[in-house]
Amino acid sequence: MIQSMEERRTIRKYTHQDVSSDMLNNLLRVAFRASTMGGMQLYSVIVTRDAAMKEKLSPAHFNQPMVKTAPVVLTFCADFRRFSQWCEQREAQPGYDNFLSFMNAATDTLLVAQDFCTLAESEGLGICYLGTTIYNSDKIIDTLQLPELVFPVTTITVGYPAEIPAQTDRLAFESLIHEEMYHDATPEMINEVYAQKEAMEENRKFVEENGKKTLAQVFTEVRYTKDANEAMSKNLLESLKRQGFIK
Amino acid sequence: MIQSMEERRTIRKYTHQDVSSDMLNNLLRVAFRASTMGGMQLYSVIVTRDAAMKEKLSPAHFNQPMVKTAPVVLTFCADFRRFSQWCEQREAQPGYDNFLSFMNAATDTLLVAQDFCTLAESEGLGICYLGTTIYNSDKIIDTLQLPELVFPVTTITVGYPAEIPAQTDRLAFESLIHEEMYHDATPEMINEVYAQKEAMEENRKFVEENGKKTLAQVFTEVRYTKDANEAMSKNLLESLKRQGFIK
Repeated sequence: MIQSMEERRTIRKYTHQDVSSDMLNNLLRVAFRASTMGGMQLYSVIVTRDAAMKEKLSPAHFNQPMVKTAPVVLTFCADFRRFSQWCEQREAQPGYDNFLSFMNAATDTLLVAQDFCTLAESEGLGICYLGTTIYNSDKIIDTLQLPELVFPVTTITVGYPAEIPAQTDRLAFESLIHEEMYHDATPEMINEVYAQKEAMEENRKFVEENGKKTLAQVFTEVRYTKDANEAMSKNLLESLKRQGFIK
Repeated sequence: MIQSMEERRTIRKYTHQDVSSDMLNNLLRVAFRASTMGGMQLYSVIVTRDAAMKEKLSPAHFNQPMVKTAPVVLTFCADFRRFSQWCEQREAQPGYDNFLSFMNAATDTLLVAQDFCTLAESEGLGICYLGTTIYNSDKIIDTLQLPELVFPVTTITVGYPAEIPAQTDRLAFESLIHEEMYHDATPEMINEVYAQKEAMEENRKFVEENGKKTLAQVFTEVRYTKDANEAMSKNLLESLKRQGFIK
């Protein structure tokens, strides 16, 4: 499994082979052994196989084709509802309608999601994370009918790989690690850290096709713009309020 | 590795054996292959080995002994600083001082943290997550000197196990999975889901020792109270503001 983690790549194209419920459930069952805050297991997983439901989810994920072409779509949700229901039935007043509790539940959720991916890949499946989940959480909440104190944190599409893309690059190890305390990078270090990424043929094309001067501009002006981020931040905070995690 | 994930337990007591830098770095290197938003790798890991630094971190983690007894303490931080510095050096205006960007970076960070745990455990190491990281983020920010757009998301203590505790319980699989959409639990289902947990000898003792009527009350009145959660939510939001992720 270390090898499959080292050789990891995101898979966006899947064969027509289905992922059996038995296999899926076995992988999820092991994933649920991930560490969890106070043993509370603050998550739920929504399994989407139905074509009509995929169709409904698709716009929330900006119509990325994986939502409709993957045999299985998993929406991993932070869930303080189950636990709070239990408290209410046991003469205990739950106090989890706040931002800290959301972060605790989101953390639990993401550890399980990543465990699931590691397990799925070790069994020959391919996965793709959809970061769009928190961009358009309101649409997902509506489609999956998520009640209060349940919030979609991430989505993973799953299937058998129909492609083996090249592995994506990673920054130099040293730039990601700090001994004892944070050591701010000098401009020279930043130049060095990003030099490899900037030199890649694929990225140079990317800059040219977008009519930009630098690769960084492709990120800030095309892919992840300030305006979009700020609008989506507002939506995200509103959705958290709607689901009862912020007052 | 599937086996080591199935047999997973949190390890809070460690032998005196050190974890070599080589081993630690190899595990982190593989962990950094985790999926990452747009290839941006929005995280940094602070490695604490120095006894004086552990001493300083300890109160932020409510003096849980693992901070001082583990050979290595890893603080996993959401980091949009490195990327933003690069943008600024490349005539690109970064737009990542917002809540959405924090969540994107926190997600990247937690996927790497969980990968690290899976890898460490498969090599015979034991780990413990410290949820206290976001309870007292301000203290950790000060101690590790985290600059703007860097935020501590979780902490993991690492060492060779000096104990093999019993595995903790997990809720019934069916209660965590929803087909196609969220199906709210009925009161009867909630009773069933938590019955096993409530019947455990250890938990019955827990209720008695705390002078409570139900196990849920131990959670709401002792372990994770509404007042504490609300106070820590306020601190967390203030820290996010201080680090530039909320306006």
